[in-house]
Parts: sequence; C-alpha cells; structure tokens
Amino acid sequence: MGLKAGVVGAAGFAGIELVRLLLRHPDFELTVVTSDAWAGTPISRMYPAFTGVTDLAFSANAQAPLAECDVVFLAVPHTAALAVAPGLIEQGVSVVDLSADFRLADPEEYQAWYKTPHTATDLLAKRAFGLPELFRKDLEDLAAKHAAGEAVLVGCAGCYPTATSLAAAPAIRAGLIDPKGVVVVDAVSGVTGAGKKATERTHFCFANENVEAYGVGTHRHTPEISQILGLDGRLVFTPHLAPLNRGLLSTVTMPLDPAKPLPTQEELDKVYADFYADSALVQFIQGGQPQTSSVAGTDRAQVGAVVHTAARMVVATGAIDNLGKGAAGQAVQCANIICGLDEAAGLDLIACAI
Amino acid sequence: MGLKAGVVGAAGFAGIELVRLLLRHPDFELTVVTSDAWAGTPISRMYPAFTGVTDLAFSANAQAPLAECDVVFLAVPHTAALAVAPGLIEQGVSVVDLSADFRLADPEEYQAWYKTPHTATDLLAKRAFGLPELFRKDLEDLAAKHAAGEAVLVGCAGCYPTATSLAAAPAIRAGLIDPKGVVVVDAVSGVTGAGKKATERTHFCFANENVEAYGVGTHRHTPEISQILGLDGRLVFTPHLAPLNRGLLSTVTMPLDPAKPLPTQEELDKVYADFYADSALVQFIQGGQPQTSSVAGTDRAQVGAVVHTAARMVVATGAIDNLGKGAAGQAVQCANIICGLDEAAGLDLIACAI
Amino acid sequence: MGLKAGVVGAAGFAGIELVRLLLRHPDFELTVVTSDAWAGTPISRMYPAFTGVTDLAFSANAQAPLAECDVVFLAVPHTAALAVAPGLIEQGVSVVDLSADFRLADPEEYQAWYKTPHTATDLLAKRAFGLPELFRKDLEDLAAKHAAGEAVLVGCAGCYPTATSLAAAPAIRAGLIDPKGVVVVDAVSGVTGAGKKATERTHFCFANENVEAYGVGTHRHTPEISQILGLDGRLVFTPHLAPLNRGLLSTVTMPLDPAKPLPTQEELDKVYADFYADSALVQFIQGGQPQTSSVAGTDRAQVGAVVHTAARMVVATGAIDNLGKGAAGQAVQCANIICGLDEAAGLDLIACAI
Amino acid sequence: MGLKAGVVGAAGFAGIELVRLLLRHPDFELTVVTSDAWAGTPISRMYPAFTGVTDLAFSANAQAPLAECDVVFLAVPHTAALAVAPGLIEQGVSVVDLSADFRLADPEEYQAWYKTPHTATDLLAKRAFGLPELFRKDLEDLAAKHAAGEAVLVGCAGCYPTATSLAAAPAIRAGLIDPKGVVVVDAVSGVTGAGKKATERTHFCFANENVEAYGVGTHRHTPEISQILGLDGRLVFTPHLAPLNRGLLSTVTMPLDPAKPLPTQEELDKVYADFYADSALVQFIQGGQPQTSSVAGTDRAQVGAVVHTAARMVVATGAIDNLGKGAAGQAVQCANIICGLDEAAGLDLIACAI
Repeated sequence: MGLKAGVVGAAGFAGIELVRLLLRHPDFELTVVTSDAWAGTPISRMYPAFTGVTDLAFSANAQAPLAECDVVFLAVPHTAALAVAPGLIEQGVSVVDLSADFRLADPEEYQAWYKTPHTATDLLAKRAFGLPELFRKDLEDLAAKHAAGEAVLVGCAGCYPTATSLAAAPAIRAGLIDPKGVVVVDAVSGVTGAGKKATERTHFCFANENVEAYGVGTHRHTPEISQILGLDGRLVFTPHLAPLNRGLLSTVTMPLDPAKPLPTQEELDKVYADFYADSALVQFIQGGQPQTSSVAGTDRAQVGAVVHTAARMVVATGAIDNLGKGAAGQAVQCANIICGLDEAAGLDLIACAI
Repeated sequence: MGLKAGVVGAAGFAGIELVRLLLRHPDFELTVVTSDAWAGTPISRMYPAFTGVTDLAFSANAQAPLAECDVVFLAVPHTAALAVAPGLIEQGVSVVDLSADFRLADPEEYQAWYKTPHTATDLLAKRAFGLPELFRKDLEDLAAKHAAGEAVLVGCAGCYPTATSLAAAPAIRAGLIDPKGVVVVDAVSGVTGAGKKATERTHFCFANENVEAYGVGTHRHTPEISQILGLDGRLVFTPHLAPLNRGLLSTVTMPLDPAKPLPTQEELDKVYADFYADSALVQFIQGGQPQTSSVAGTDRAQVGAVVHTAARMVVATGAIDNLGKGAAGQAVQCANIICGLDEAAGLDLIACAI
Repeated sequence: MGLKAGVVGAAGFAGIELVRLLLRHPDFELTVVTSDAWAGTPISRMYPAFTGVTDLAFSANAQAPLAECDVVFLAVPHTAALAVAPGLIEQGVSVVDLSADFRLADPEEYQAWYKTPHTATDLLAKRAFGLPELFRKDLEDLAAKHAAGEAVLVGCAGCYPTATSLAAAPAIRAGLIDPKGVVVVDAVSGVTGAGKKATERTHFCFANENVEAYGVGTHRHTPEISQILGLDGRLVFTPHLAPLNRGLLSTVTMPLDPAKPLPTQEELDKVYADFYADSALVQFIQGGQPQTSSVAGTDRAQVGAVVHTAARMVVATGAIDNLGKGAAGQAVQCANIICGLDEAAGLDLIACAI
Repeated sequence: MGLKAGVVGAAGFAGIELVRLLLRHPDFELTVVTSDAWAGTPISRMYPAFTGVTDLAFSANAQAPLAECDVVFLAVPHTAALAVAPGLIEQGVSVVDLSADFRLADPEEYQAWYKTPHTATDLLAKRAFGLPELFRKDLEDLAAKHAAGEAVLVGCAGCYPTATSLAAAPAIRAGLIDPKGVVVVDAVSGVTGAGKKATERTHFCFANENVEAYGVGTHRHTPEISQILGLDGRLVFTPHLAPLNRGLLSTVTMPLDPAKPLPTQEELDKVYADFYADSALVQFIQGGQPQTSSVAGTDRAQVGAVVHTAARMVVATGAIDNLGKGAAGQAVQCANIICGLDEAAGLDLIACAI
C-alpha cells in the first residue's frame, strides 16, 4: 500500500473500471477520484456495485489533491489530457494517460486526425507507448527514470489498436507478412466502447439485437494501428458495434510475403506460441479461436492465428475486454511496470467462465 | 389461395420461419408441414407463437401428401435435399431448396467441400440459383417452364453468401474491382444461424456476452461466395457469431482496379443506388451503414458502400436477417418468381424499428 | 383504404409502432405523422427500417392536417393528450389516445396520481376505456356513434394494466377471488417500456445483464389496474425492468374466496378457456405458462392460470408486447372496433418464433 | 495456502464458479477437481477463461484424491451428494454441499418434494444450514468441531431461498409480519440458473428476448424458503426466467401484522439497516432498489424494502448472483467460517459496474 494513486475522470466507464481495479490492488492505494460533473457524490451512489466496498466520493478536478499521488491515471477525453498532464508531470507526478493525446508519436498526425494542435510535443517526445507486450523496453526505461524520482508519462494504446496489434504483431515481426500488402482489420466492440453518455447509439433498444459497422475509413484508431504495426497507411480498419457490454474482437487479414515460402500452420503456431510464451496476460489459443467472454472483466488477451493457404494470407484474431486490456487493465499494467512492480499485480482476475 | 405449398423440415429454424411467412401469404396456402422427429405434434405446441393462428400439425415425411403441392420448400440439412428433391420433381412438384445441395454449380466442388458425392447432377444442371437480385433471369426462365407445367428446382443462396454478394456485386459488376485482387469478407451472424440444435455453442450462457470467429478458412459458404462473385478463389471469408437472435452483417473489403481511375464516393454511390433502384426488397443506404435490426424479421436487405481512398479499396456492408433474406424470406421470394407472382408477395413485413 | 389515419407523436416508440402497423393496414391509410422535434425529417432517416417502405416525413403538430383524418392516434405523454384531444373531437375527428389522460374514470384520482388537474372532464365522461376483451360493449357503443358521424374518444389501457387485467379478469369476473383480499402483481417489462429518451436507465450497459424493481408502491398504473379489476385499492403492484426490447409479463397472485369451495385446476382451466374462447387475439395456454417471445411484435396476448392449493390462491400470468397489445396494437384494435372493422384487421402478425 | 480444497462436479456452472473463486483464494489451495464426463480434460480446454491461469485437469470421481482435502465442495445434482457426503465425512473430510440434499431439515419433506428417500438422516441431523447471515451460530458451532478435528457438513441454501430470505428475514425477525398471512414471492433468475445442460430451455434463441414464469406452485425451493422464514407453508413462490447470464432478483410481498401499528418507512429502514450493519457481504440499499448487475460475479447481496401503506404490506427485494451468493460464493463463505477464516476471505470481488 505504499503507492498513492488517483484517477481523473473516474465517473466514466474507463475511470470506474480503474477504480474497481485499484481498490483491490495490493500495491496501490486509491486516494483520489475526480469528476467535475459528480463532485461530492459518493462512488457507490452512482455505481451501486461499490456499496459497502468504498466510501470514496468524487472530487472536482481543481480541488483534488493529485499532487500527493505517485501515479495519476487520466481517463478523460482527448485534449483534456493535454491540458492536465503537463502540470502533473511538473509537480513530479507520473501520469498514465488513457486518452488519445499521447498515442500518436507524430504531432502532425495527431492534428490531422483530431483536428486540434498538439500542445505538449515535448512531453510527447518523452512518453512511452503503453502496450507492454509490444513495447516493454520503452516502459522499462521509464521505470528506471521513475525509480530515480523523475515523473514519467505513458500514453496507453487504444482498445482497437491493442486487440489488433496483439493479433497481428507476431506474424509481422516474424517477417511473414508482405511489406507492401494492405492489412484488413474488421473489429467488433461491445457497447461500453461507446462510452457512458446516453445517446441514441447507446440506447438499449437501438443497440440490442443489432450489429452495424461505423466510422468506415474514418475511425481515429486507424493511424494508431498503422503506427504500432509499421503499416505506413497500408490498412483498412472497419469497426463494428455488437450487443454486449464488454468485449472486443479484432479479425486481422494479412497477406503473406510472396517472396517467402508459405508457412505451414505448425510454423505459424510456433511463431505465435513463442511470441507469447512468457506473457503473463496474453495467451495464444492454438488450434482454436479466442472468445471475448474468456477475457471479460480482466486485463487478459487471447489470440488465434490461421494460415489461409488458398489466398496466401494469415487470419489472426485478438480478443480483449475493451475496458480491461483495452483501457483500465492495460493502464494498471503500465503503471505496475513503471513503478517497478510485477506487471500483473492486481490483475489476477479470472473471467466469469459463464 | 390458389397455390398449395408444403414445407419439409418445418420444425427447424428456417422451416418455422417459412411457416410464419406462408401462413400469411396471399397466394400460397400452406397445407403440409413435415418433421419426422415431431410428427403428430401441433406446430403451436412446439412454437407457442402459433397458438390461435394455425391448427396444423407436423407430419412424418413419408406420410406427407407432398405430391399435392404446387411448391415444396426443403428446409433440411445438406444431403437430405439430394434424397428428396428428385422424387418431388418427378411427381411434378416444383422445389425450392434451402439446403446447400443445389447451390454449387460444380458437383466436384460440392464433393470437395461437403465430403459426399452429388447424386443429382442432372437436376443440378437445370436448377436456378436462388438470389433474385443477382440472378433474376435464371429464375424467370424457370417461371416460364413452371407456367408450362414443368416442375422446376431452385437452389437458394446461403445466408452469408446473400449478404456478402448483395454488398459486393454492384461494385464488381461495374468493373471497379481488381480482377486479380483478393476480397476479404468478415461477417457476423446471430445465433439462429447456428440452428435449433441445443449445443454448447447455442447455450445462452456461452453465446451471450461473447463474440468469436469460427470456421476460419474452412466455412462451406466460401466456394458459394466465390461462385456468385466470380472470384475464382480470391477470397478470405471469416464468419463470426454475436449475441443476437436474427441478423447478419457482412463487411466486404475489395481492392479497386489499379488500372482504372479511383472512383469518387459520389460515383460509387451512383453505382449502388442505380443497381438497387428498382429492387423491391434491397435498399442502398447512401451516406450511412446498414443495421441488422432494420431488416430483422423481413426479407429485406440493406447495403452500404464506402470508397477507402488511402488503401484504394471499397468497403461494402450488407445487412440481412439470416432467417429472412438469408433463408426463408428469400425462398418465398424465389417461389413467388417461379410461380409468376409479384416477387414481394407476402413479404411486405416491416422490421420492428425498436 | 377508405379511412385516413394520423399519428401525433409518431417519433416515439409507441408512435413508430403505430406507423409500422398502419402502413400495412388494409383499411386505414396513414396520411399524417407528427413530431415537433423531428418535423421535416423523413421517417426512414430516423428509423431506417422504413427505408424503401414509405416516404412519409414528420410534420410539426401545428401544421399537420389532422382535421382531414377519420381517426387520430395520440402517442404523447400525459397532459399532452388533454391539450390536443378536445380540439380534434370538436373538429369531428375521432381520437384514440395512448396516453394516461383518459384512462382513469375519476378526474380526482387522475389529479392525485398525475399531480395536475384533469382539464377535459366532459370528454372523460364520454370516453370508452380501450381494452376490448374486457370492455367491448363500451367500444361498440362508440362504434355506433362514430357510424352516426359523431367524433368519439378512446382512452387506451396502459401496458401493465393490460397484461395484468387479461391475466386476472377471468378469475375475478367468475367470482372466484376473495372480494376482501389483496392482489399482488409483480410484472416485468422490456426496455422499450422506458421510452425512447436516452437516459442512464435506458443505456445499454446499465440495462443489459440486469434485473431490478422500480417505482415500488408508487407506479401510476396502480390505480388503473385497481379500476379495471374493481379492487378498490386492494393491490400491491411492483414493476420490474429486464434486458429485452419488447415483452411484458405480469404475474398476478390472487386469494381465492374462502367462502367458496376450492376450485380444481380443471375448473379454473374451463373458466379461462371459456373466457377467451372467442377472442381473436388473446389465447389461454392451458397447462403451461405464456412466454413474452410468443407475442412480441404483435397485438396478441397469452395467459396462464394455476390453482395454488396450499395457499388457496390463483397465480395467473399474462404475456404481451408492451408496444403491441400494451400500446400500439391495442390502439389499432380499438380503432378497428370504433370504425366498424374487424377488430383484428391489420393485426394478423405472427411473432418470430425465434 | 494451508488448506486443501476439492470440488466434485467441477465442470458444471456452480462447480466452475467454485474453481474460479478457489484458484484466487488466499487460504485454500485447490488440488482436486472432478468430473466423470470430462475426466482427463484440462479445465482450460473446456473453459478457455482459465487458459494461462491453471493447468488443473478434471479427474474421475472414483480416482480423485478427495480424502487428502481439508474441505470438499459438492457441486452435484441432488441424490449425488447423498451418495458421496457420508464417505467423505467418514474419511475425516469436511463437506460443503451445494446440492439440495442437506437443505431441508425434515427428511420426510425431502422425500415428498424430491421423490426419493433421504438416505443420510444422521448426517442431516448434524449438518448446519449454509446461509451465514441468518444461521451464523450454527456454522460457528461447526467451526469449533472442525477445529477440534471433526469432519462437518454444511448444506448450502439454494439460490432463490437465499435472495428471498435475505430480503424477507429482517422484517419477519423483527416481528413486523402477520404470522398468519401468506407471503408472495416472485423471483427472476438469469439463465445460468438453468444449468449447463444444453436444452431447448437454455438455447440462446429461445431464452433471449423472453421472460416467462415456470414451475408455478411446484418449484422445489418452496419448502426451503418456508423453512428458513418459518412460514409453515404460507407461501406462494413463482420463479421466472429472464435473458441474462447471472443475476437473481426476488421480490417478496409480506402482510404487516394487523395487531401492530403500521411502521413508518424510517422505522423499516432502521430495521433493515441494523440487520445488515455488520454484514461484510450484504448491503441494505436505503431509499432505492437493488440491481442484480451490482452483485454479478460476487458473493455480495443487496436488499431493498418499502412499506406499502395502502395495502399494509412490506415489499422487500433481494439481488444476488445466482452462481455467487446463490451457490459458489456462499459455499466458499461457509467454508471460510467452518475453517475459522474471515468469512469474506477470497470473496473481495467487486461487480463490474458496467
């Protein structure tokens, strides 16, 4: 209980999931939760699951004693993190940002996709990208700085990029994929991905018993996926909404490199199994396909991969909980690493099998 | 009420949907429904939605007076239609088959994918493929024969092939798509697509709150999609299961022909709008994406299409009810056409908007 | 197509269900749909299920040519019907009101429960209560007046009162129930019952995977149920919300009259079977329990009843679609009756069995 | 990790939930999981949520080293526990039984409801009833015996009895309820309550978008509820099924004692708040109604209570996870108590708020 943690924007879906994880974390003590809209309200009044669990109430952002925290998580919309992160870092507080503000390495790309200038490019240059299985070294570098008393910043990966990249990276990094080919990503998210705001889109009666694509060709996770996987724009990403609360499945179809012999399924299995052999939280499901229900409520991810011989493609699938490994779980995992803890500390939850 | 209709395999999901449609059809009279497993049981005992609607009971197949029907619908597993269709045709009864037995034009391809020889290749050669919006002429040819007293056979398209082809065909037939490129199809189906059999796969607690891919690279609808769209195997088809009863969305990513100028979105819109301008049951949703809930319970389909400029692709989506336009509705539409009726007769249902 | 119909408040859930029913009605022509909030918007833009079905657009209430209609349906919140109905009646337009404004016969009770005075008590005195199976005579009296050119008013029963009363009335009217005993009603509604407004209550992620009671002891349908069944306040009514779109099940526990011999189950079956023997739309499920899925999307109701010997009670259950027999379907049924049509005209829909 | 635990019947829904809880328990080590049907299969093959979490595989019951355990949990159908429990007790292993075999204190009542004789009446006489909040003293008596080296037996309460009794007991034990009045219980369960067997009842497409009552007047939890609350048969219990995985809400309508003054809501609130003031896992929701989603995946329960002045009744509601506090969670809680541990050890999970 040595480390104090705060959550800015704790009333939203990613924020409250952070609260759920941090209240049971063996090493962090959750001391501050903020929400301007709900300042003064006990968490348990808004989310009755916390009745009898915590007496914490939301504070207004301006009044919250965030400077006393060792780590502050930002569960806020993009641009809001740009406004808050620099001040916290200046006060010596390390920041784990769940927004989109520190994901894209190139501030011009940020401006192009988010239609607003990046106002903290110096911080951006020093941040690590929060997807430990693919960028562990960068996070460990931050851990060294944090241990030396420096406040550091993590820009956590988004939900679609996380599931997609965990599915695709082993094949790409193994050099199996055509460096000139286009990767097609069709991903399906549960409705928590659309956020807490009550809209027609999130109304039960419109979301229930429905599947639809949205943001075709325009979703802001596109450049982030491209950046992680080094696709340089050779990417078609189509997100979909399906009627479940939590869960995100990304199906990634990648052309095999025509200059190389077609791998066998056994060879592909080995590539994936080896890639995740030492991973605490990501599992390769050999000979099967991952299910989102197997990881719901957790920071775990499961991945499958199939050689499509006829079309010379790899079809890889990645399942996560969009609020878990896709948001709050991953943020806690990143915080664990930069604080020198076991990366899975407090993340030992097992999905309800049914 | 001049035409007598029968349904073989009426207790299954596609079968009972046929019953629901035919009981309200202005021109067909449903006189026979068969089910060996449920012979003697009133429909309403098994499906209480029919209480007060019909007193019809299931007959055993062998005892059912199918020869008295003008049209018999086969809602049976593959190979069962091979066993039944020839006898019916011989007796002068036209057959609309919902199974896979008469979909693939090439009997060797049938044998390769279904692991059993095709035993009615002569009938296969004369059948029409049941997807009216794309093969209307073939169905109209059958209508002429049927009118002349000849018993004819329709092999109805499967659910995934229907949604996929309705989404893809306008762009392909307009010559926009690279004739050498690979088409990627990711499709999501509701659980009725898995059939009535109670299995772990269809158990509420396993299907609910879950999304998963299945049959990656091996689903039997693959050659059918390839046949309809003339892809000659340049196809990666990945089906998924999502937690809803009815609804199927197919997302089709197709490479634009590099030899031609990139079409504008307006040009693509025009291609799609024109293609379905006269269609009674298929609508192009310009500037948006179709939702499965908009067509659930109906024979309607809705289609969207977007030019992905950066990747030089078209992303097209097609939404159907897998039991409607993907099975029973389409079968009735085909029956309407071969019987010389309005193609939409009895298919004027409107989806519950919510 | 002789009769012109209009719907005021057509953009809401009950309103759009009326649109769905009236567009396919053999005798009514839907000519006007109003919504101040969506004036000018085509129905199909808001509810894509209507794409290719109708070109009708919403009109502002003040501009809508409602006076040209033979019947106008009011799908508006309470007090809004009080404001609109008198003017329509004065213009000679018969009105079928789905709001609560003309349900309670006693204006003082209206004021007590709805906290606003009843401003059309003269109309209230002449209205019929719209629940045909229990108050057919009153509706037929209106039919005679309507035929004679008089504009008439129906105040349609609410959703919970409809399901509850259809379940309870046969036993009560047969004199089986203790005239001094308290009736306990626990009812479960789908989320469409909470209306179209996007709120935390109707957010998918809060409604999904949840069951809860609400409005315990305070729900405004309490006096209406008491009025229909003549309970004079001897009623405990507890509504619940469950995660489905459409469907309402009411479970009614009624003490048997201690002054009379305990009926056998066979005797109770006969009471219920006889009561609904001639009913086109309500069915008694002997030896079983009704399911909401059997009536979803329709104006049908199904009812079950069991003698609880040990506790000397009758447990009766009633299943409806809250938007069908609980709102729009019932309104059309009432309109059919007052217009001298078959009561089931346009209401021949069959629930999707699965 | 001092205590070894085994689960008999671990492949079923209650069994696998025990596995989920015990794998993370700070004091129990799960060493044996049995399933005759799945002997030899790794847990993670059947329930992929356990991939990377445990390598345990199911053993056949006869081969399993259950005698080495300190506590064995029986997650088996009724009569199976009768067959297994005596032998385990004889071998010195304490048993926590989740089946119905040791719930009813009166073996004749067991025979009457379960249609089979009770073959372990001596054990039955010594067992404690597993519902800690209401029968803590009995469990603590077993703890003393267990500490002294005696093998003891707990017969855990069923899911409906748990939710119902937690809601009703405070008012009944406070003497507020008419000792001659009939209590009406309407309860709604998620589909996990129907078990893992794939049947038409548990098929996604039949359970989804449906609510129904079942077992009216005949459900076997009736005598158990009566026993816990001392109702002596003055009980009408009607269970219902709703489309969610986990969650059970019981709504209990109880007549207030006419010989006593009507309590105010404040007085009732105090009765309930005091009753659960020291409870680690059960919370009274003052001024509101409990939601099942607030306790899903946990051993927690939430309770609400309202004075219905007009009808002189109390309407109390209790929300649990039928697999948590209604089965596996409660069993672990009982095991904690008889082993002298904190009753909430390993049960600190917080429901996913969304």
